[in-house]
Amino acid sequence: MKKLINQPDDFVRESLEGMAAAHPDLIKVNFEPTFVYRTDAPVKGKVAVISGGGSGHEPMHAGFVGMGMLDAAVPGEVFTSPTPDQMLAAAKQVDAGAGILNIVKNYSGDVMNFEMATELARSEDMRVLNILIDDDVAVKDSLYTQGRRGVGTTVLAEKICGAAAEQGYDLQQIADLCVRVNCNGRSMGMALTSCTLPAKGSPTFELGDTEIEMGCGIHGEPGRQRMSIAPVDEITETLALGIIEDSAYSRTVRQWDESQGDWVDVELTDLPLESGSNVLAFVNGMGGTPLSELYIVYRKLAQVCEGKGLKIVRNLIGSYITSLEMQGCSITLLKVDDEMVKLWDAPVKTAALKWG
Amino acid sequence: MKKLINQPDDFVRESLEGMAAAHPDLIKVNFEPTFVYRTDAPVKGKVAVISGGGSGHEPMHAGFVGMGMLDAAVPGEVFTSPTPDQMLAAAKQVDAGAGILNIVKNYSGDVMNFEMATELARSEDMRVLNILIDDDVAVKDSLYTQGRRGVGTTVLAEKICGAAAEQGYDLQQIADLCVRVNCNGRSMGMALTSCTLPAKGSPTFELGDTEIEMGCGIHGEPGRQRMSIAPVDEITETLALGIIEDSAYSRTVRQWDESQGDWVDVELTDLPLESGSNVLAFVNGMGGTPLSELYIVYRKLAQVCEGKGLKIVRNLIGSYITSLEMQGCSITLLKVDDEMVKLWDAPVKTAALKWG
Repeated sequence: MKKLINQPDDFVRESLEGMAAAHPDLIKVNFEPTFVYRTDAPVKGKVAVISGGGSGHEPMHAGFVGMGMLDAAVPGEVFTSPTPDQMLAAAKQVDAGAGILNIVKNYSGDVMNFEMATELARSEDMRVLNILIDDDVAVKDSLYTQGRRGVGTTVLAEKICGAAAEQGYDLQQIADLCVRVNCNGRSMGMALTSCTLPAKGSPTFELGDTEIEMGCGIHGEPGRQRMSIAPVDEITETLALGIIEDSAYSRTVRQWDESQGDWVDVELTDLPLESGSNVLAFVNGMGGTPLSELYIVYRKLAQVCEGKGLKIVRNLIGSYITSLEMQGCSITLLKVDDEMVKLWDAPVKTAALKWG
Repeated sequence: MKKLINQPDDFVRESLEGMAAAHPDLIKVNFEPTFVYRTDAPVKGKVAVISGGGSGHEPMHAGFVGMGMLDAAVPGEVFTSPTPDQMLAAAKQVDAGAGILNIVKNYSGDVMNFEMATELARSEDMRVLNILIDDDVAVKDSLYTQGRRGVGTTVLAEKICGAAAEQGYDLQQIADLCVRVNCNGRSMGMALTSCTLPAKGSPTFELGDTEIEMGCGIHGEPGRQRMSIAPVDEITETLALGIIEDSAYSRTVRQWDESQGDWVDVELTDLPLESGSNVLAFVNGMGGTPLSELYIVYRKLAQVCEGKGLKIVRNLIGSYITSLEMQGCSITLLKVDDEMVKLWDAPVKTAALKWG
């Protein structure tokens, strides 16, 4: 294993220490328990938006903490869910009394721990809603999670909901918006190479010299097909059509209903990407992919979208939700309305996303 | 070779087509000859800043074209200098009559071709000055170039000189500023892995499973030492001290003197990084390095700088001058004065750098 690390056990802590040293104007990092938060949190009157999950996907989530996006990020060990006590401590740190939205990627550990943290927070009179992101069309159910995995749409949901919070949306409005983003966003990824967890020291999975994994998850979970390397235009078309032509996916999601003060089951169905839709196209690198190659992916994606009558009104190209040094990419298409575009365009000032 | 490409020969063109499709608000791409330019160029009354060089270092340079940075970028084939006719065509496209500054990395082909393009431009009554970047302390002379190689300081020079042009500095002022940045900036890099040129299909150089190349160049050129992988703190300290403790480097540079209308030899000497200096610290990924690891490098770099009495007043962390999918990093320290900091902070709007 060749990595720019010291002791494998210090990987997450030292990377966060580096972030704290680099961005004292944006973030603070708390250890024991570990979480990252906006220097100016709690922001008076504002709903706090929090996300978290295993480390190894940087810049997600800590790189998205700052004005216009997340109030806090809760990083676990590499590819391992953070614990409820981390989540609760982060919530207490950033709670301004207007409520907290947790954006939760659909992995069993994350879901369970965020629910537990939420129960604890409610027992301390905080208002908390958790919204699930489950946008990966590659695999419906797997060993790793029930339903679809949460991937690229998470980045977009964090930006859009973060902007909404900044603009004074209330908790329920932001939660509804987050559900809407999730039901309008779909992703699929692929890997050219595996990745190596620092603590393990050997690749998470094995790929032959000419093999790729289509539909690969962000923890190296198996996808739809192990196949031979193909021209990027073919790979891109497979990913894009996998997303665009996905049949309407329905799932029952357990959500907290504030008016009833109880959990309720909500039926959610993805909205179709029909011709004439406006989309935000996100081409994401897995961590070890050169930017030059992502632009070649985008080139073909734009052609496929045009052929399908989808108008790309915004795009994001770069490595934002990664799998350590894995080579590969994912595509996310988010069907956007004017409100989402306006929130996407709103100013953001974080370590990894900055504009406006 | 596993890459997200179609035909190797189409790599550069298709990547640029993807950029053009993604950023029509920022850039246009011309083919035959190939160059990338600001949509709003020529910008009336403004000195035009141009840079260029071989492809494979993305986002440099095309990702830096836009308001507050470059007016045009001239990409060659992978790791291959662009041609004088490309450079001349770019100059004509963006020339607003206030003169052109070419920022040239010190590689023999780039230097020669930019000089040739400049002669041609002058014969068409354009005012052009070329300033060399030669900041890599690892190797003084090599097979690949005379003197030091041009690496990370290039990114900083493009930002700072681009801001100066935007603020109305005249050509000579910007050229002088660029020289000052170059004499105050020093870099050193290292590689964990090699990289593979699309057209070649096999690694540029060979590194064993536990070997690293200290002082590696951005084309995989040999550095100071082939050694065993070490903890990142040791690697970072070696790079940082290599930069900080470098003996004052002097070189004779051939520069065009507008008042004499002729080339003159100028003696330039690096300024020392003495205790008490303010620095901009740039931790750069080589293309295949996860951001998490770059932050671990930054963590140690901040400690080394503090120990040496250097105050990091600005930083940049990410993959900005890369070597395809190479894993590794480089460090650049630029001693800054108030003027440089102000220009660094000035608004920039390009595909790869955006703020203000």
